[in-house]
Amino acid sequence: MFDRVQVEPSDTSISEAIDAATRGGYDGYIAVGGGSVIDTAKAANLYATYPAELLTYVNAPIGLAQPIPGLLKPLIAIPTTAGTGSETTGVSIFDIRALGAKTGIAHRALRPNLGIIDPDNTRTMPPMVAACSGLDVLSHAIESFTAIPYARRAAAEDPAMRPAYQGANPISDVWAARAMEMVAENLVRAIQDPDDDDARGQMMLAAAFAGIGFGNAGVHLPHGMSYPISGLARDFFPAGYPADHAIVPHGMSVILTAPAVFRYTASVDPARHLTVAKLLGADTIAVGIREAGDVLADRIVTIMRETGMPNGLAAVGIRESDLDALVAGTIPQHRVTKLSPRPASESELRALFSASMTCW
Amino acid sequence: MFDRVQVEPSDTSISEAIDAATRGGYDGYIAVGGGSVIDTAKAANLYATYPAELLTYVNAPIGLAQPIPGLLKPLIAIPTTAGTGSETTGVSIFDIRALGAKTGIAHRALRPNLGIIDPDNTRTMPPMVAACSGLDVLSHAIESFTAIPYARRAAAEDPAMRPAYQGANPISDVWAARAMEMVAENLVRAIQDPDDDDARGQMMLAAAFAGIGFGNAGVHLPHGMSYPISGLARDFFPAGYPADHAIVPHGMSVILTAPAVFRYTASVDPARHLTVAKLLGADTIAVGIREAGDVLADRIVTIMRETGMPNGLAAVGIRESDLDALVAGTIPQHRVTKLSPRPASESELRALFSASMTCW
Repeated sequence: MFDRVQVEPSDTSISEAIDAATRGGYDGYIAVGGGSVIDTAKAANLYATYPAELLTYVNAPIGLAQPIPGLLKPLIAIPTTAGTGSETTGVSIFDIRALGAKTGIAHRALRPNLGIIDPDNTRTMPPMVAACSGLDVLSHAIESFTAIPYARRAAAEDPAMRPAYQGANPISDVWAARAMEMVAENLVRAIQDPDDDDARGQMMLAAAFAGIGFGNAGVHLPHGMSYPISGLARDFFPAGYPADHAIVPHGMSVILTAPAVFRYTASVDPARHLTVAKLLGADTIAVGIREAGDVLADRIVTIMRETGMPNGLAAVGIRESDLDALVAGTIPQHRVTKLSPRPASESELRALFSASMTCW
Repeated sequence: MFDRVQVEPSDTSISEAIDAATRGGYDGYIAVGGGSVIDTAKAANLYATYPAELLTYVNAPIGLAQPIPGLLKPLIAIPTTAGTGSETTGVSIFDIRALGAKTGIAHRALRPNLGIIDPDNTRTMPPMVAACSGLDVLSHAIESFTAIPYARRAAAEDPAMRPAYQGANPISDVWAARAMEMVAENLVRAIQDPDDDDARGQMMLAAAFAGIGFGNAGVHLPHGMSYPISGLARDFFPAGYPADHAIVPHGMSVILTAPAVFRYTASVDPARHLTVAKLLGADTIAVGIREAGDVLADRIVTIMRETGMPNGLAAVGIRESDLDALVAGTIPQHRVTKLSPRPASESELRALFSASMTCW
């Protein structure tokens, strides 16, 4: 048993897990935990099976993005949060400490062979963990549904170099749309009453459904912009998380920019953004197409307030003087940001971060 | 190339395909056609790879239902109808002539490795073929959505004997629900205007989506009861089908009993049946739960009339004197009929066939 997984893993903690896996020579792996645990197990399995320098398989431009040479050892993922969807994806995310950047590895060989999705495993999840992980589900679903359509994405010349993220497509849409409905109906209930087995069960399924969706379509700006936000955690200690270090939990760092991002992307396909607002429970009958972005942003803000989120980046300790660092930290995340339906260069990213300092 | 596939295959036509496949010693198969072609290719691939008497792998009680020993040769399925969903399933259906019974083989090893779903391949489909295959999609979706819930199904003791059909579950529900919406929005359009690329594209996707749903959850009474209906084809020659023999096309034989069946099964879970009616476009706001079966049956009848279906079994040449044969032909179909949410013994089956002599 390896129990030294770090919440929001780093190259250091991942390397420790890789060493343990390599020394153990195991026939397979069982990951019991949230996204941090499952992503760590994926990386440990990879480097114990195909030993290499850490950067070998890491996404470009930070790593060399070498394709994984073959199948890994069996991995069974047992999520204990309703958030990550990592049990369904071929993605492992972690920090590179020396660069202060979040990156990861994306290849279908990383995908677990089996996921055991049992709502009993989230019964003791602290409310703030339930809220943040549930808002990660919400953003997975909205981002994959609004991502650049698969037919508009630049194709890879070499099939082996095809990215894990393909852009929004008719299959991922089915999963994302259903996940949005389920989050809208069940997240607040699941946070407020951990004994609401039905709501917790639906959130567990929603996390997996959204995972199948975004694991194929991809995520875009809110995820790409979240990594430098989490990297700037200085003096924020949310309830229910380890108190030994400051943390802006992943789901929180994702949702804080979501209202500004979807207000920005709506103009590219307002009908699709209005569909999202409707799936999330907004009354869209009398809404004009030009209001799509505002209606969706307002609906997300309502859910943020109902789930106890802080009011924007300022409330988690981000300052105006951090804007340069936030933009600089987002630029290398082009693996996901290039899936935005509306491109965002440095000036647009700065405006989106600035607009997210307060959300309401 | 083997082009002697029979529309609605039989043991005779399947055996001819198996002989051709065995003689050819092929490395793989490409099936281009509707369900008859894809199902024939699945069987040819199976028996050329693992030679055996035909009944060896055929479903019990007609066959021995031996599990398929391993992987088959690669099979690529290219559907030219928007109906079967066979490109997504591990099921192959055919007649056993000597018994006058429809049966087949169900095992995950039969599932094609790849399906190429291109709406250009349905552009020249005759309108009645588009209607019947589209109503097959509709019934796949409704049957799998209303099938007995997976947790209520009797479990197989031996994992190798687990049936392909698992009962309705949260995954199959997602596919079935979306397929119903897509059929309701696109079937009539696709029949009336073959140049409506969007409607044909949506129907192709709906067929695959419903296939993923029913290929896991299963179908129940309308499919189980359809086989003896098709077997009694005597003097019915629908436009667009081969004129050399009488035929009640599969999708037609399925939909003719659907109104009576869902009126019958609604009492077990009226809310779920009302959800189906709503997904199909019925106004259910003022509908009481006791009316669920009637509202759903009425909605199906409306779609049948819009798609040019004959008015019940009498209109395809079935007589009251056939009722015994229809019931007797349904009894062996317990692989599917046992998935009905409400059990139907001989007397109930007789009543359902009788109620289906005219549909409106």
